[in-house]
Amino acid sequence: MKGPLSEALIKLQQKNTVSFHTPGHKNGRLFHLLSEPWLPESFPDWDTTEIPGTDYLHEPKGVIWESQEKAADFFGAEESFFLVNGSTCGIYSMIMAVAKPGDELIVQRNSHQSIYNGCFLADVTPRYMMPQVDENTGMILGVTEQEVREALERWPKAQAVLLTSPNYYGFTVDVTAIAAMVHRQGKKLLVDEAHGSHLVLDPRLPTSALKAGADLVVQSTHKTLPALTQASMLHLQGKRIDRPRLKQMLRIHQSSSPSYILMASLDATVALLEKHGKTLMDQLLENLTSVRSNLENISCLEVAKPDDPTRLWLNMHGTGLSGYEWNNRLAEEYQIMMEMADPMGILAVTSIGNEKEDFDRLVSSVMATIERQSKNNADYPVENLGSQVKTSYTEPVIQRLTPRQAMQAEVEEIQLEKAAGRISAEMLAPYPPGIPVIMPGEEVTQPLLDWLKTRKEFTGKRIKVIK
Amino acid sequence: MKGPLSEALIKLQQKNTVSFHTPGHKNGRLFHLLSEPWLPESFPDWDTTEIPGTDYLHEPKGVIWESQEKAADFFGAEESFFLVNGSTCGIYSMIMAVAKPGDELIVQRNSHQSIYNGCFLADVTPRYMMPQVDENTGMILGVTEQEVREALERWPKAQAVLLTSPNYYGFTVDVTAIAAMVHRQGKKLLVDEAHGSHLVLDPRLPTSALKAGADLVVQSTHKTLPALTQASMLHLQGKRIDRPRLKQMLRIHQSSSPSYILMASLDATVALLEKHGKTLMDQLLENLTSVRSNLENISCLEVAKPDDPTRLWLNMHGTGLSGYEWNNRLAEEYQIMMEMADPMGILAVTSIGNEKEDFDRLVSSVMATIERQSKNNADYPVENLGSQVKTSYTEPVIQRLTPRQAMQAEVEEIQLEKAAGRISAEMLAPYPPGIPVIMPGEEVTQPLLDWLKTRKEFTGKRIKVIK
Repeated sequence: MKGPLSEALIKLQQKNTVSFHTPGHKNGRLFHLLSEPWLPESFPDWDTTEIPGTDYLHEPKGVIWESQEKAADFFGAEESFFLVNGSTCGIYSMIMAVAKPGDELIVQRNSHQSIYNGCFLADVTPRYMMPQVDENTGMILGVTEQEVREALERWPKAQAVLLTSPNYYGFTVDVTAIAAMVHRQGKKLLVDEAHGSHLVLDPRLPTSALKAGADLVVQSTHKTLPALTQASMLHLQGKRIDRPRLKQMLRIHQSSSPSYILMASLDATVALLEKHGKTLMDQLLENLTSVRSNLENISCLEVAKPDDPTRLWLNMHGTGLSGYEWNNRLAEEYQIMMEMADPMGILAVTSIGNEKEDFDRLVSSVMATIERQSKNNADYPVENLGSQVKTSYTEPVIQRLTPRQAMQAEVEEIQLEKAAGRISAEMLAPYPPGIPVIMPGEEVTQPLLDWLKTRKEFTGKRIKVIK
Repeated sequence: MKGPLSEALIKLQQKNTVSFHTPGHKNGRLFHLLSEPWLPESFPDWDTTEIPGTDYLHEPKGVIWESQEKAADFFGAEESFFLVNGSTCGIYSMIMAVAKPGDELIVQRNSHQSIYNGCFLADVTPRYMMPQVDENTGMILGVTEQEVREALERWPKAQAVLLTSPNYYGFTVDVTAIAAMVHRQGKKLLVDEAHGSHLVLDPRLPTSALKAGADLVVQSTHKTLPALTQASMLHLQGKRIDRPRLKQMLRIHQSSSPSYILMASLDATVALLEKHGKTLMDQLLENLTSVRSNLENISCLEVAKPDDPTRLWLNMHGTGLSGYEWNNRLAEEYQIMMEMADPMGILAVTSIGNEKEDFDRLVSSVMATIERQSKNNADYPVENLGSQVKTSYTEPVIQRLTPRQAMQAEVEEIQLEKAAGRISAEMLAPYPPGIPVIMPGEEVTQPLLDWLKTRKEFTGKRIKVIK
């Protein structure tokens, strides 16, 4: 009687995989790990709606308010909001709380798509800062205080800066210094901390954006902490944000029938962390020290050293296999599921749900694969990866239309090579490093086309442009 | 170790309440009722993300695509989309799929807030049809084909009509006739069928909007079918809708980390309905026939006869207690939780998760309360309810600003009685019948103020107006 999706999820569960991907509960392990399980067997039966005693997310005065207060205390916010439509709705709400139609917002060029979509919905023009990239690996690093300062000088109309920190690879920006500088200029600092909800757990981790002084911070509590997928939080502090307007936007961007099990998973996460958070993070950091030293002993591997040690990116270039191939082999042969692969390597999102055994399985599987690989004589040679990421298009972008204008316009598809002078209706983000070289509403320039010719994936490609 | 929200939900579960409210699984009963439970104990462990084998909601090609195809077959659509941000995101997406900034959309004045918020996000101007109201009870009925035709004549720029059917009370509009008429004019018909996902289960129920010919239909699968709260569907048929644009909007209005347990609950709902849907609905309709005749035998009660018999609205006016008081007594003394109360009565949302025992408990509790009430000599007299709903403000509205302009404008609060000629920044919807008499962006007129004087809840009230 099962449906196709249910069947797939049951099969996955039966495989007993190791999860180095989101969500942070690691295949539900953290629901059961502890002497007092925080998600009981009857958990789905908790699913209810607004009736006496269950409060109301969009105007909380009872248990949801109380639970949000506990979350605010734990994460160091003045006010915290449970999000049931992922960090996406938190990003939209914070953009629309600080910017009105026609305003500008300073963002990193490598922002998550929700930031671009938020600008579309808000009718706000994003003004870009180009992040640093590691030329040897293609990993995106971040932006410096100096670059933020220059952006503020270049775009004086913008009233807020939206940073992404930490990023997917675990690199952070200096939020403390940037917050102080932005605030001195009378502007607001928003942080997309989707990948950093766990930072508060240990002083050896990078400073959390709230502690660093950001005004608004969005966290994907499900990514690195054990909340259910799609359950996130928005945190607020200080007097720079119009709170009624923020709350109005949160009501708009989330269902009027919010999920109680998503909200309960946030509530339960805070309770779990209060009791066991520091101990579990201590164990994780110890396991990570050990796995890093084991992996570093493998001569053809390189282990990245991001600011956040819970992100484990392995440069597999020296093994003769691409990251994609490594990803497939670990999944198919060893049931180890990584978060992400790129041409050079593989990325593990580790959390307090990972145990020593997971890391042991990772190390032994990597060693066994390398062992076999040298015998099989490189079936999957990796070519030119280093040189691909060494070039990086840095020509200033020419924004001809706002995201809203671009998304509403009539489009047509033409040969990419003939697009010079036209306005793009799509994003192109060659990978690595995955930073957009053009966004909808921007002019396709001849220098860009010349540069794209050096990337073979664009040969003969067509592009959607505004009619 | 539990958090405040978890504690509240556990307490609620221990009370063993009867649910006559959403969600349709009725306190999880339908998860366990059948010989083959569709939600196993380990269900929360299914929570995962996009990894090999689990497909991707925003570009489905595997098990999610397959599951959506099965849903489309079952509900009679050409294409169906799982929604993880409730019907809210379906409403936003369908509005933005058919209307661009500056466009007009014909809607009922008693639309759900998501329709108004969708117009705000889309920068679309809603043009209103006034629904019929039952003067004896305050129940909102619907709009006629003639009224839709007149609206299309009055607002010829509008390219689409958005109907609400069935409404909260179970009254429908003649979607079949309206769809044919709207399509003859070359326009599109969208239906908010949030309260009607179950209609497909039995020919004795009103015709579903898809069968009636609507182009796009949003259903809250969690409201009257057993999906988890916040899990909904959007259905599409025909060639009038720009499908790529619709899909783009669905990607925008939903989390980029969609919940697998919400999606799996939609998948499992379809599987459950395919096997047991007709039988369970047959039992429900039989139980409803019996409970209706039992309740109709109670002389001081009046049982409404909506088009959808699964909505049970009881006019309690004759008992000397308000609907609010009835709602409290049933909840506190008998653990019977209704969906909604208004001054006149109480509303039960029944579903295939309700068993005969639930209805027996309702009847015996109502009888026991009435018995005691007559002895206690009407502690809670209900005054003037009939006359309150007999007046209804019908002055044409004067729309001075679009929802987007109104929501972005600077506001101030003034005495309501001095607001003539000002533009309102808020909605006023005296209850009953709960239809807005003014919306943000509309001019406050003297006839409106004169009418509001007849409603005592507005005495001395202040109102937010545009500066």
